[in-house]
Amino acid sequence: MSLTAVVRTALCVAFLLVATAWPVRAADREALLTQPGVYGTFAAFQMDHDWWDLPGEARVIAVAEVKGLIEQFSRNVVIESYLLRGLSDHADFMFRVHAHALSDTQQFLTSLLGTRFGRHLVPTSYFHGLTRPGVYVPGFPEDIKQALQVPGDAGAKSYAIVIPIRKDAEWWGLDHASRGALMQEHTEAALPYSASVKRKLYHSSGLDDFDFITYFETDKLEDFQGLIRALEQVKEYRHDRRFGYPTLLGTIRPLDDVLELFAR
Amino acid sequence: MSLTAVVRTALCVAFLLVATAWPVRAADREALLTQPGVYGTFAAFQMDHDWWDLPGEARVIAVAEVKGLIEQFSRNVVIESYLLRGLSDHADFMFRVHAHALSDTQQFLTSLLGTRFGRHLVPTSYFHGLTRPGVYVPGFPEDIKQALQVPGDAGAKSYAIVIPIRKDAEWWGLDHASRGALMQEHTEAALPYSASVKRKLYHSSGLDDFDFITYFETDKLEDFQGLIRALEQVKEYRHDRRFGYPTLLGTIRPLDDVLELFAR
Amino acid sequence: MSLTAVVRTALCVAFLLVATAWPVRAADREALLTQPGVYGTFAAFQMDHDWWDLPGEARVIAVAEVKGLIEQFSRNVVIESYLLRGLSDHADFMFRVHAHALSDTQQFLTSLLGTRFGRHLVPTSYFHGLTRPGVYVPGFPEDIKQALQVPGDAGAKSYAIVIPIRKDAEWWGLDHASRGALMQEHTEAALPYSASVKRKLYHSSGLDDFDFITYFETDKLEDFQGLIRALEQVKEYRHDRRFGYPTLLGTIRPLDDVLELFAR
Amino acid sequence: MSLTAVVRTALCVAFLLVATAWPVRAADREALLTQPGVYGTFAAFQMDHDWWDLPGEARVIAVAEVKGLIEQFSRNVVIESYLLRGLSDHADFMFRVHAHALSDTQQFLTSLLGTRFGRHLVPTSYFHGLTRPGVYVPGFPEDIKQALQVPGDAGAKSYAIVIPIRKDAEWWGLDHASRGALMQEHTEAALPYSASVKRKLYHSSGLDDFDFITYFETDKLEDFQGLIRALEQVKEYRHDRRFGYPTLLGTIRPLDDVLELFAR
Amino acid sequence: MSLTAVVRTALCVAFLLVATAWPVRAADREALLTQPGVYGTFAAFQMDHDWWDLPGEARVIAVAEVKGLIEQFSRNVVIESYLLRGLSDHADFMFRVHAHALSDTQQFLTSLLGTRFGRHLVPTSYFHGLTRPGVYVPGFPEDIKQALQVPGDAGAKSYAIVIPIRKDAEWWGLDHASRGALMQEHTEAALPYSASVKRKLYHSSGLDDFDFITYFETDKLEDFQGLIRALEQVKEYRHDRRFGYPTLLGTIRPLDDVLELFAR
Repeated sequence: MSLTAVVRTALCVAFLLVATAWPVRAADREALLTQPGVYGTFAAFQMDHDWWDLPGEARVIAVAEVKGLIEQFSRNVVIESYLLRGLSDHADFMFRVHAHALSDTQQFLTSLLGTRFGRHLVPTSYFHGLTRPGVYVPGFPEDIKQALQVPGDAGAKSYAIVIPIRKDAEWWGLDHASRGALMQEHTEAALPYSASVKRKLYHSSGLDDFDFITYFETDKLEDFQGLIRALEQVKEYRHDRRFGYPTLLGTIRPLDDVLELFAR
Repeated sequence: MSLTAVVRTALCVAFLLVATAWPVRAADREALLTQPGVYGTFAAFQMDHDWWDLPGEARVIAVAEVKGLIEQFSRNVVIESYLLRGLSDHADFMFRVHAHALSDTQQFLTSLLGTRFGRHLVPTSYFHGLTRPGVYVPGFPEDIKQALQVPGDAGAKSYAIVIPIRKDAEWWGLDHASRGALMQEHTEAALPYSASVKRKLYHSSGLDDFDFITYFETDKLEDFQGLIRALEQVKEYRHDRRFGYPTLLGTIRPLDDVLELFAR
Repeated sequence: MSLTAVVRTALCVAFLLVATAWPVRAADREALLTQPGVYGTFAAFQMDHDWWDLPGEARVIAVAEVKGLIEQFSRNVVIESYLLRGLSDHADFMFRVHAHALSDTQQFLTSLLGTRFGRHLVPTSYFHGLTRPGVYVPGFPEDIKQALQVPGDAGAKSYAIVIPIRKDAEWWGLDHASRGALMQEHTEAALPYSASVKRKLYHSSGLDDFDFITYFETDKLEDFQGLIRALEQVKEYRHDRRFGYPTLLGTIRPLDDVLELFAR
Repeated sequence: MSLTAVVRTALCVAFLLVATAWPVRAADREALLTQPGVYGTFAAFQMDHDWWDLPGEARVIAVAEVKGLIEQFSRNVVIESYLLRGLSDHADFMFRVHAHALSDTQQFLTSLLGTRFGRHLVPTSYFHGLTRPGVYVPGFPEDIKQALQVPGDAGAKSYAIVIPIRKDAEWWGLDHASRGALMQEHTEAALPYSASVKRKLYHSSGLDDFDFITYFETDKLEDFQGLIRALEQVKEYRHDRRFGYPTLLGTIRPLDDVLELFAR
Repeated sequence: MSLTAVVRTALCVAFLLVATAWPVRAADREALLTQPGVYGTFAAFQMDHDWWDLPGEARVIAVAEVKGLIEQFSRNVVIESYLLRGLSDHADFMFRVHAHALSDTQQFLTSLLGTRFGRHLVPTSYFHGLTRPGVYVPGFPEDIKQALQVPGDAGAKSYAIVIPIRKDAEWWGLDHASRGALMQEHTEAALPYSASVKRKLYHSSGLDDFDFITYFETDKLEDFQGLIRALEQVKEYRHDRRFGYPTLLGTIRPLDDVLELFAR
């Protein structure tokens, strides 16, 4: 890349940074992150080894291009970033993208992969899921319903874990009431951990090879492990034909932190 | 590539574009897409990283060569294009090819892979199937038969999903009537979604490692997920030894949109 | 490669073409293809992407070298070629090699891989099997035995399919008579397809990870699919621990057609 | 890399070696290696083939950079090194990292991967686990408890083996007492080997795709195999849905020995 | 590589060839190959495609370096070589290494991988096992014991096959007598093949992901297949959770034959 090209690109990126500074409004963001009917995509990537053969300047510019791109897309989709490097063996980082339509998510990820940065990325795992109103909660006793309303510990969490799940055919063959009873046992087992471990469920049947994508945030990995052990001990767990494979473990990080690793 | 070579290739491509402008006639196309006895191939590809090291001009010419090639083959086969990038993790795009003979499909795909564009493609999944008259429908009650005749929502759909299926040996060991009864339950569960989700079935036993390739088009992914969940709850699902692995999810796109990504 | 080297190689290849023109005699060839006690190897290959970076001349010479080599080896082994490209997703072409000893096959394939062409090949699947006299046929009723003698449709076939099979332990634990009864049911189910689908069985236990390699040739893929469906419906199919994975599908092609693809 | 850059890097590395010479204090180190509530990470790496294309000087400097880095991080985490090359087929070396927080481990591994050395590493397997007080031991008879207190053979061991384990759902569905009884049988079977084989258990549910990571050190591989055979014969083994896949086998080596291989 | 470097390396290799000419003494070699308590390692390798880009001289020197290395290590370990190329699809050659300690084997393989030749090798499968006195033989009737003493056909064999085996938990849960009875049936089924097929058993539990590595040598592959079929039909086979995957098939070849392939 000649120097003039570098300057041109830098200007172009600077323009993007100015021109696109209208992220999703706070209310929309809140809605995307909390309401049912929203699509969540977990996209994990690995950087190829050729990336590091680029000159430092080229990498800095390429990373700046990505930042501009993400700002631009933040009008339509909520993008959160996670550092998987050093904790997951086949991925360097992950985006969680929430959107009203998967086509918006696709547009973002396609644009990302089309950048000079993206051309070096290997997409290692994409999971998609839809948020839905609680399916079994309406049938739970009042005390459980109330316990589920108690907000968890405030403040940002450090760790995020993604575990995809596929249920066996027998599970789906059970009637709604039987599944509800099993889910009540599951929920009761999980309650002691609700303060320190935040959970979110995505329904993925048909969108990928799983039935559910379970997402966790915590500061206390020991509590998170306690939760998983508790969930392994209830009867519903016997219907998990696949649990993990892969489990993704990382830390929640601002985009700049994640991208900086590749600009150095 | 020297400039004269570029010009020569451009002229050659232009000639192709003129010379081959006889796509499948509308009636033939309709027949290929709707009648039994037609072979459908789902071919998903990933672009290698070296592609992006080619100069921009070379990529533009290579893409033009592919467009010409596809026009040329459109006399024999119907080719539809899908963008998987950003939604499926190991593929960038997919062609669905309908032909009276798989050797025609092979000729097209072999020619594609022999172009300068194709030399950078990694074929990630090929599924083949044959369309057949409904096997169990003739034994269904009249009301279901009639419901199956009602046309779905008009207009183009946005999303396409491909789910390959392998049945277990017990399924094939059932007598025709038993399988018919299970398929009737399956069909009844699916009916509520027939307006918003278009389905097409391909029989693949012996042509690849599956028994069926199921293909879906929809504008409403939420309805599509409702359909899959409904199908997971009928008894026939217990006979799916493999369902997905891989599930391919993408958007239906004109060829030019898909190819443009690689010319930029 | 300098021009003199090119000329030297071309002369050398020309010499090979002259010097080695003693293929297997017709009678030997017939014996290798029809008698028991012969080893059949199915070797599928994929061309790496670097091949296409070679100059056109170098590719033409490399392909000529392979043709010479195959002629040379045709004194000991029968080599047939198949185009898998465009029909199988992880292989470009396949050789079926029949020999009295697997060491002869190894010598051929090792020589092939040592050519300039072969250095770019990735061997994706090797299956080996031994032809044997019919194990259960002697116990079949006379009418089935006679039906098995009826020759299939004359003429060359277009398509070839290779399906490796692994039986479960229960199958091998059955006594000979029980297995014979199940194989009779299998054979009766297959008879209606014997005119249009040619079958050949190779015993592979111990030579690779399968028990049998089944090989099919047909002009009518629809009939072939009918045959596979019929075979899935007999009880013997319940003992197939693995059926396919991978299924190889291709077209039967003269060596020159296959190699020409890589010389262009 | 120019000569001045080489010198600058060498000085920089020398500075690191001086500036960071405060490893974990002996007491802290002991605590990290022996107490519950500590995170252990097993990170296995393979060197890519491009590494060997670097000039010898560049490799020496890159290795020195890694040594400095490890000294620097030794203030927070305990890092032990193992040579897997020649004994495990998909990895060259492994680090076992003990830390009070996985985020510290991530910081170390991310820094490692960001060095010139690390850019050539392929992380092949990461396992994470948490050390916990014995779950079933409190319920064991006194004589077993006492036998477990007997220290093993003194002195450094040569070999280390890592075997990840996933239990089936039935295991977790057993009540505590039943699991305790099975673990007592397991423990009794293992006792004869406790002198010559050192064992350590990490709980990994939720942190990766396993439930436990079992770690062994021994000088006598024959005894270690005797231990594994003994453990395969108790009833608890029937609940191991996965045992190994992969098993990692290597020798315990000082960091300098391991890194030296790549500097040569 | 400059010419002087070439000369220096050649001299160095020549020196090695002289200096290291003390292979394992005949008696030691015999002991390593026949006695219990010896470690056997099966290490299969694939050559990468870049190897062939080296100039012919560099390849010749690199191969000579390997020959010198193997002579040097022949003081401690017995190294046998096999050509897998053309018979196994993911490996080119294999070493079987017998040693009193796996650390000796590791030292050899690590040195091998550190040569210029080794830098291009991809280790595809390592299996390790320990030879042990017959576990069930002492309980067999006298006539079987005597039959097992009869020496097989004299002379070198052509083919070698390696089949790794993993038993299920039920097998290990049987008491010794039950396993002994099943192994007696297994042994009786194998006896008719003992003249033409040589077998050797390695115990691998804990050293890799298998329980046994079975090794076969034969001149008559047809007999070998008969043996495997006979073994598939005894009850003990039902306890093989994994049999093969991968099966390695090759020919027994002098080291020079194997290495020559890569020097050409």
